[in-house]
Amino acid sequence: MRHVYFDSNATTRVAPEVLEEMMPYFDRSYGNPSSFHSFGSACMEAVEKARKQVADLIGAAPEEVFFTSGGTESDNTALKGAARMDPSRNGLVVSAVEHPAVLETARYLERRGHPVFYAGVDSEGSLNVREVSSAVDEGTALVSLMAANNETGVLFPVDELAKIAHGMGALYHTDAVQAVGKIEIDVRKQDIDLLSISAHKLHGPMGAGALFVRRGIDLPPLMHGGHQEEGLRAGTLNVPGIVGLGKAAELAGEELREGSAERLRNLRNRIEEGIISTCPETLILASETERLPNTLTAVFGGIESEAILTLLDMKGISASSGSACSTGTTDPSHVLTAMGCDANMGNSAIRISFDRYTTEEEVDYLLEQLPPIVEKLRDVSPYA
Amino acid sequence: MRHVYFDSNATTRVAPEVLEEMMPYFDRSYGNPSSFHSFGSACMEAVEKARKQVADLIGAAPEEVFFTSGGTESDNTALKGAARMDPSRNGLVVSAVEHPAVLETARYLERRGHPVFYAGVDSEGSLNVREVSSAVDEGTALVSLMAANNETGVLFPVDELAKIAHGMGALYHTDAVQAVGKIEIDVRKQDIDLLSISAHKLHGPMGAGALFVRRGIDLPPLMHGGHQEEGLRAGTLNVPGIVGLGKAAELAGEELREGSAERLRNLRNRIEEGIISTCPETLILASETERLPNTLTAVFGGIESEAILTLLDMKGISASSGSACSTGTTDPSHVLTAMGCDANMGNSAIRISFDRYTTEEEVDYLLEQLPPIVEKLRDVSPYA
Repeated sequence: MRHVYFDSNATTRVAPEVLEEMMPYFDRSYGNPSSFHSFGSACMEAVEKARKQVADLIGAAPEEVFFTSGGTESDNTALKGAARMDPSRNGLVVSAVEHPAVLETARYLERRGHPVFYAGVDSEGSLNVREVSSAVDEGTALVSLMAANNETGVLFPVDELAKIAHGMGALYHTDAVQAVGKIEIDVRKQDIDLLSISAHKLHGPMGAGALFVRRGIDLPPLMHGGHQEEGLRAGTLNVPGIVGLGKAAELAGEELREGSAERLRNLRNRIEEGIISTCPETLILASETERLPNTLTAVFGGIESEAILTLLDMKGISASSGSACSTGTTDPSHVLTAMGCDANMGNSAIRISFDRYTTEEEVDYLLEQLPPIVEKLRDVSPYA
Repeated sequence: MRHVYFDSNATTRVAPEVLEEMMPYFDRSYGNPSSFHSFGSACMEAVEKARKQVADLIGAAPEEVFFTSGGTESDNTALKGAARMDPSRNGLVVSAVEHPAVLETARYLERRGHPVFYAGVDSEGSLNVREVSSAVDEGTALVSLMAANNETGVLFPVDELAKIAHGMGALYHTDAVQAVGKIEIDVRKQDIDLLSISAHKLHGPMGAGALFVRRGIDLPPLMHGGHQEEGLRAGTLNVPGIVGLGKAAELAGEELREGSAERLRNLRNRIEEGIISTCPETLILASETERLPNTLTAVFGGIESEAILTLLDMKGISASSGSACSTGTTDPSHVLTAMGCDANMGNSAIRISFDRYTTEEEVDYLLEQLPPIVEKLRDVSPYA
C-alpha cells in the first residue's frame, strides 16, 4: 500500500544528508567528547560544528546554544530554571495554548507556589496580547509564549512579546519547536532570551534538541552531574544526535533562503481550497490568521476525527487530530477549547501538516481520498 | 595510524547488530509512537519490544522499564523523585564515590534542605557498609549506591544494601550504568527498587537510557509535558535510540550467558600482570576487591597521568584518567581521594577499560607501547 505522511508536526523523517552525517559517530568515531584522547576530541569537534550550525539558523552565537534531549527538556530547563533564579521574582506568564511541555511545567510550578498567568486566545487562535501585557509585572520571572502553535500553526508576535517581558524586567522564552526551520527566527533581532528547539521536527533525529540561552543569563540546570555544556546540562553528549541536529539546522536554513515557505504555503492553499470545495460544512481553523506555511486544521462538522483518521490510515494516509503528545486522552484539544470550539467541533478536527518531502502528487492523493471518506461518515453520523 | 580503544567505560562503539536494528526508524518507519496512525503504531511496537528486551536483561517486567535520555537523566529522576515523594521522609544516603550524576544531584538536594549522608570507602574501594547501616533511618527516603564504580570497577554489595534500605522502609536505587551487561543484575532477586541504565555504555547509542521503577512506586516525573511513559517521562520517545538500547540489552544478555565476563577477566589479568611486571613502582587499585571484569586502574607513581595519556594517544591508544564526566577539571578524582590516595597518586592514575570487541592483539599492542612510555616519563619526572 501507498504511504503518505501528513503528520510532520508530530515528527519528520530524518533527511538523508542528516543521516549520512550522523553515521560515522555510531561505530567509527565513537568517543566520548569529554574524553582526553583523540577519539574524544574528534567527537567534540563534531559537536562544536553542530553548535555553530544551530546558532547560525537562529542568529545566535555558538556559545549560546546548549544541547538537550529535545524540546520537552529544553522547555523544562527554561521554565524551571528561570522561575527559580530569584525568589522575589518567581512568576510566569504563559498562554492557554502552549504545548504540554510548557503548560504542564507551568502547572507544576504553580503547584509549587509560583504565580502563573495563562493568557487566552481569540477564536482565530490569536494571542490576547493586551492580557499578556497587563499580567506581566515586577514579580514575573519569565514570559513563555510559543512562536508557532503546533495544532493550528498560528504565529504569536514574538518581537512584541519580548518587548512586553523586557519592559517589566522579565525574561522572554519561546517554544520555537514548530517554528524553527519553517519561518525565519532571529534571536538577536527579535530580542529573545531563551528558545527551545527539537531536532526531529526539522528532519533531524529524535532524542536531540537545543536550548538557546542568551549570553549573561545564569540559568540553573535541570539535571545535575558532569560538567558538560558549561554545567547547564549534565550527561554524556549525544554525539550522533547533535551532529544530526546541526546538519538539519544547516539544511533548514538553506531551504528557507531558497523559499521553502512559499512552496509549502502553496501546498497548504491547495489542500485548504480542495477540502473546502469538496467537503461541505467544513471549516479551516485560524484561516484568517498568520500561520506556519505547513500546517492546517480542518473541522469536519458532525464527524468524529478518530473515524476520519482511521479511514485515512486505511488508505495509507497519516494525519492527526492534534498534538501527538496528547494522544490517548479523550478530552478535546486544549488549543481548540481555548479558541472557543465546543466539544463537538474539537472532536471533529483534523490536523494536516507536511514538509519539504511532500509532493504535489501526495496532495492530489489526499484530496482524492478525503472527500469520499467525509461523505461516507456524514451519511452514518447521527449528528450530521 | 592504528587506533586501539581502551576507554569503554566512557563510551562504547555501537554494535553493528544494534545499528542495523535502529536504521529503519530514522527515515523509513519514522512515526511518532504517540500518533494514532499506523506510522505511529509501528514505532510504538518497536518501543515495546525494546522495553521487553531491557526488562529481560535485568529481570524486570516490561511495564517497570521507563525510557530516558541516558544514565544522568535516570539518576536525576530517581534521586529527585524519591526525595520528594514524602516530605516527612526526605533524606538520602549515597556514597562518596558515586558518579557525578548521583553525587551532584545529592549535593543539589542537600542545598535544597534534604539531609544527605555520604558513606565512605576503604583503600581498596570497598564500601563501608556499617556506615551505611547506621546512617539509614526513618527519615531516609532513598539509599542510592552504585552497582559498580566507573573508575575502579569495584562492586558494591547490592543485595545487602537493598536489605539495609528496606529494613528502615527506605527505597533502594542503584546506578548500574557500568554494571548492566557486564555482570549479572536481577532486580527481583536483588530486591532493587530503582535502577539506572545507559545505552551507550553497552554498545547501544548515546542519548538513550532507562530507569527501572519497581511496580507500585509512584515516582514523580523530572520533566513535565506529554503523557508519554505513563507520565513519568514527558517528551517524544526517541524511537531509534530506544530500539538500539533494546537490541544492545539483548546482545549483552547473550554475551553474559556465553561467559563474556570470564573472557574479559582474563584480558584484565593479562593487562594487570603485564603492567606490574614491566613498569616498576606501579600498583593496581582495588586489585584485591571484587571488580567489573573489564576495568582496571593503574597508578604510575610519580608520573602525571596526562603525560601518559598524551603519549599513548600518539601511539593511537585511547585510555583515560578516570571519569570522562570529570575531564577538564584539574582536581584529582573524587573516587581515588575517597580511597585515601594523595594528590600525587590521584594524578598518576590511568583507567584502562575495554569490551567485547577488544582483542588479544590489542592487549599485546598496549603492553608493548605502555612500558617504554612509563620509563621515558620516569626519566624526566622530577618526582620519580
